[in-house]
Amino acid sequence: MTDRPDTPLLDRVNRPADLKNFSDAELVKLSHELRAETISAVSETGGHLGAGLGVVELTVAIHSVFDTPKDKLIWDVSHQCYPHKILTERRDRIRTLRMKDGLSGFTKRSESPYDPFGAAHSSTSISAALGFSVARDLGGNVPEGLGDAIAVIGDGSMSAGMAYEAMNNAGHLKKRMFVILNDNEMSIAPPVGAMSTYLSRLYAEEPFQDFKAAAKGAVSMLPGPFREGAKRAKDMLKGMAVGGTLFEQLGFSYLGPIDGHDLNQLLPVLRTVKARATGPVLIHVITKKGKGYGPAEAARDKGHATAKFDVLTGEQKKAPSNAPSYTRVFADSLIAEAANDDKICAVTAAMPDGTGLNLFAERYPSRCFDVGIAEQHGVTFSAGLAAGGMKPFCTMYSTFLQRGYDQVVHDVAIQRLPVRFAIDRAGLVGADGATHAGAFDVAFLANLPDFVVMAAADEAELVHMVATAAAYDDGPIAFRFPRGEGAGVTMPERGVPLEIGKGRIIAEGKRVALLSFGTRLSEVEKAAEALRAKGITPTIADARFAKPLDREMILSLAADHEALITIEEGAVGGFGSHVAQLLADEGVFDAGLKYRSMVLPDTFIDQASPADMYAVAGMNAEHIEAKVLDVLGIASIGAQRA
Amino acid sequence: MTDRPDTPLLDRVNRPADLKNFSDAELVKLSHELRAETISAVSETGGHLGAGLGVVELTVAIHSVFDTPKDKLIWDVSHQCYPHKILTERRDRIRTLRMKDGLSGFTKRSESPYDPFGAAHSSTSISAALGFSVARDLGGNVPEGLGDAIAVIGDGSMSAGMAYEAMNNAGHLKKRMFVILNDNEMSIAPPVGAMSTYLSRLYAEEPFQDFKAAAKGAVSMLPGPFREGAKRAKDMLKGMAVGGTLFEQLGFSYLGPIDGHDLNQLLPVLRTVKARATGPVLIHVITKKGKGYGPAEAARDKGHATAKFDVLTGEQKKAPSNAPSYTRVFADSLIAEAANDDKICAVTAAMPDGTGLNLFAERYPSRCFDVGIAEQHGVTFSAGLAAGGMKPFCTMYSTFLQRGYDQVVHDVAIQRLPVRFAIDRAGLVGADGATHAGAFDVAFLANLPDFVVMAAADEAELVHMVATAAAYDDGPIAFRFPRGEGAGVTMPERGVPLEIGKGRIIAEGKRVALLSFGTRLSEVEKAAEALRAKGITPTIADARFAKPLDREMILSLAADHEALITIEEGAVGGFGSHVAQLLADEGVFDAGLKYRSMVLPDTFIDQASPADMYAVAGMNAEHIEAKVLDVLGIASIGAQRA
Repeated sequence: MTDRPDTPLLDRVNRPADLKNFSDAELVKLSHELRAETISAVSETGGHLGAGLGVVELTVAIHSVFDTPKDKLIWDVSHQCYPHKILTERRDRIRTLRMKDGLSGFTKRSESPYDPFGAAHSSTSISAALGFSVARDLGGNVPEGLGDAIAVIGDGSMSAGMAYEAMNNAGHLKKRMFVILNDNEMSIAPPVGAMSTYLSRLYAEEPFQDFKAAAKGAVSMLPGPFREGAKRAKDMLKGMAVGGTLFEQLGFSYLGPIDGHDLNQLLPVLRTVKARATGPVLIHVITKKGKGYGPAEAARDKGHATAKFDVLTGEQKKAPSNAPSYTRVFADSLIAEAANDDKICAVTAAMPDGTGLNLFAERYPSRCFDVGIAEQHGVTFSAGLAAGGMKPFCTMYSTFLQRGYDQVVHDVAIQRLPVRFAIDRAGLVGADGATHAGAFDVAFLANLPDFVVMAAADEAELVHMVATAAAYDDGPIAFRFPRGEGAGVTMPERGVPLEIGKGRIIAEGKRVALLSFGTRLSEVEKAAEALRAKGITPTIADARFAKPLDREMILSLAADHEALITIEEGAVGGFGSHVAQLLADEGVFDAGLKYRSMVLPDTFIDQASPADMYAVAGMNAEHIEAKVLDVLGIASIGAQRA
Repeated sequence: MTDRPDTPLLDRVNRPADLKNFSDAELVKLSHELRAETISAVSETGGHLGAGLGVVELTVAIHSVFDTPKDKLIWDVSHQCYPHKILTERRDRIRTLRMKDGLSGFTKRSESPYDPFGAAHSSTSISAALGFSVARDLGGNVPEGLGDAIAVIGDGSMSAGMAYEAMNNAGHLKKRMFVILNDNEMSIAPPVGAMSTYLSRLYAEEPFQDFKAAAKGAVSMLPGPFREGAKRAKDMLKGMAVGGTLFEQLGFSYLGPIDGHDLNQLLPVLRTVKARATGPVLIHVITKKGKGYGPAEAARDKGHATAKFDVLTGEQKKAPSNAPSYTRVFADSLIAEAANDDKICAVTAAMPDGTGLNLFAERYPSRCFDVGIAEQHGVTFSAGLAAGGMKPFCTMYSTFLQRGYDQVVHDVAIQRLPVRFAIDRAGLVGADGATHAGAFDVAFLANLPDFVVMAAADEAELVHMVATAAAYDDGPIAFRFPRGEGAGVTMPERGVPLEIGKGRIIAEGKRVALLSFGTRLSEVEKAAEALRAKGITPTIADARFAKPLDREMILSLAADHEALITIEEGAVGGFGSHVAQLLADEGVFDAGLKYRSMVLPDTFIDQASPADMYAVAGMNAEHIEAKVLDVLGIASIGAQRA
């Protein structure tokens, strides 16, 4: 809380309109203050530092030239939105970033009118900006009015097909709109793909454009606004650009590359395009991720995501961990399997570090493929690898696998190809909040014919599930595991393939059976301990498989107990729904069974610690205990209900 | 069966290897025979005619130059695969296309080793081809061996981001592989987007390349194979090309455009690239959809899909219809709503005819947007329109909405934007088979918080649901309806918005309640009639909403009946699972309820008539009747069980 930076200019800014009173020179000073304030805030909260530092000048330039919130500024992914939040009426809460009841780490419509379109997944901004532009021309009504739409998108996000689809459509519709390509040659990991090479070449050929006319800042000296109409404006914009033919072929005027840390370039260029553009314009801006903060610039990931840190040294303050992360266990297990099977390979969609595949790539570089932010392609590429006799592990976060869903259905499931889906970040994920929750994968995978769907109850189980997936060659197979540290259980020497469709009984008990699918098992065990103190000894089982179900085990649990409760880290439609379908089909409900299914509630849960989020969801030990007492008709004095 | 064409050369071809014995002149003749055979076959079966006729010469050229099935030939979408099937050991069954137990209308791995990667949805072929190419280089094993991979993809399919993702990745990996861009300026509808304009310009600038060196057919006269290595081969390919810079910027060698109906161009070019290519090559081929058959060439859709027809006249043999199609009812209803509300607009992803939006576009051209084969963008563009105060109807087939699933979650649901999803082709669809089944949408939408999900029981209900969606502005809302004709019910003058979350009782009865969601209602009514003859009078209800559920109605049905059976045209995880969750939560199962949920079975169902497919699924009236008798413990002598 001490040592806050001195920010005399920034202190005069409550909203972007206040920037209109500043001279260009003052805006330069303001940028320095905004950078210092961003570093100071993130040092207290942790979060995405590097991306925001890279767009400080861009943020100031856009807000001083355009008229937000009437003009719609859309940050792609929005890791880079912290400086924007500071300028848009949220400076007083900036030190609550990513905390429970605090500001979201992303842009969010419900948080501010200055966030006209929230984001967290990549490459959506151009589509949204086009939507706003078309709505404006069709007479759409919104409280803040509808002006220009500006999408700011990183070069990494340009590898996603969705960005191309949007540019292809925008180039066709020819609506006035602005795409600012924030090219830092760095998304979370260094970007891959031919587009990335192309962008580098543009920059190498002509490091920075000399926009003399624009740089004079004298719009009046340029051809009179709108006098000569569209043709003239287009010619002028074209005259300012070299290269960029790829974007021009897609129907955009291209302008750049320009230095994204130089307000003396940014301001006149933005003022000019604002005054003159008649169609879609792409402005290619070169920035440095982590700009202006030594420890971030020096970091391999350019300060992408950080814990709380000491501003002077950059040293991060992390709590010591007691167990390896699930991600690490997955990576180590896959490496162990690959040592014995040269057909094993791995695919990531621009998340080598997040998925642990960076470790796999170090060991087996020729067998690891980073396809870019391209989940659709990543899934079908994996299907092609499987059809070619390889054993691909298609490794994605649950929430991002949603982007390749049709490919999972159409290319993998229908063809029954043995693609192994390693699904990280299953369940609630903490500070990234609702947009990153892995809530739906069990529902959308387990109803696909011939799919095998597993969830690891702890990190030892994960080792066995990697081995199971490696050994299984009869069709698609998926296993899910959460973000964060394991439970600290004893680890096996090697993974041993599990029998497909077989669960396990953890503890024999009476009256009530608790059937867990995934890592809620530890909460179930805690609940059971509390219940035993009250004279109730539940049976505990780990389903391991949502598909195929262990019919024998489940039917026998139902037959031998008064009540059966399923628990899973997912939405309705998943494991519990498959169990209910089985019980219904088999007539188990006919004579009565106290059946309950504990699933994620029907709401998007805001960021907090995972434990707090599961408290909101009503899925911690105390809720499981209360559910048991309720189902058995036992008064639970003082027990907290979901 | 009479008047089969005379095909002396084709009669000598059982498999592609037989083409190796033919001279180039004979291959030209063979192409004519193959075209005649294709026309003859489709005249008997109906199906996709135009696409196949456009690639007759290309099919012959590829199979005569490459070595399938070791070389992997992947037809994108694969509407154009009929000539390929005739050449690849399936001529004897070609007159069973799209019929029950017959050949699939698409390529299908389980049907033939010559179909190494099946398709039906667009733009997957380059990803799959890259997978095969990488697998080959990693030592993947498959029974047929692994040679070259060749993707044949239409210009329309190039509008999908997935194709771009794959090219971006292929250009980066630099593996030898071939993409043949089959440019007919026509997918199902005329293609849209800037890419399409770009391709037209390439062709306009240089209609056909004169590949003199290649055309001599003398590979020996070109620089010796592999002698000078990669550099030389690349230069040679480059020398053959003009334009195509967009593809070159993505890392492909570009070659074209060439006349796709001239074997004297196709053969030498393919022979040359086969001998020389070291990296990814794109060959731009210009073809005519429907080529060589007057009635197809003259048709607006170039004979895209046809019923059985008379070969001489081209006249199609269609059964007269008794009721308007659901698609037509949707379009008419939307037009009626739009007449009173200028905020209503519509989005299609390259399916204006299939969704009926062509009719809407005729009436309201400025409010209808065909975004190309770009479902990801289409969904988020709709979200942007909604955020801009418009009322977008995002209109897609159920199976294609899968391609925009993450955008539905991340851009629409989490932001609670009022996008209206009009979901056509819900349930089983007939001749298009498993790849086009609309089986999963209820499961993947109804577990999203704040989503409203409806299904129309008949065409009159559909009219009301369009009105409901138009009136509802509180968040996302979806309504689904099947392919084909309505039930022939009396139509309302105008749609009247339904009360959200309220179902309706169709008939009061006793003992068993049949709760239908969607158009199985007519089968339920048939089953009820049969049951009444046996002394059982079921209650019949139409749920209308899978979300929010009509809790009051459902709980009262459960309370008042011995048995409750839900029926829906979807997979487990959908409507029935939500009902089961409600019943469990409310403790209804505690005391016993004969609950059953009739859902699509856990298998992909091959093409047949919709009624036949529902027979396989066990979801017709007789199966519903049998289920009731079984649940009530009444012997059903002779009743057919699912």
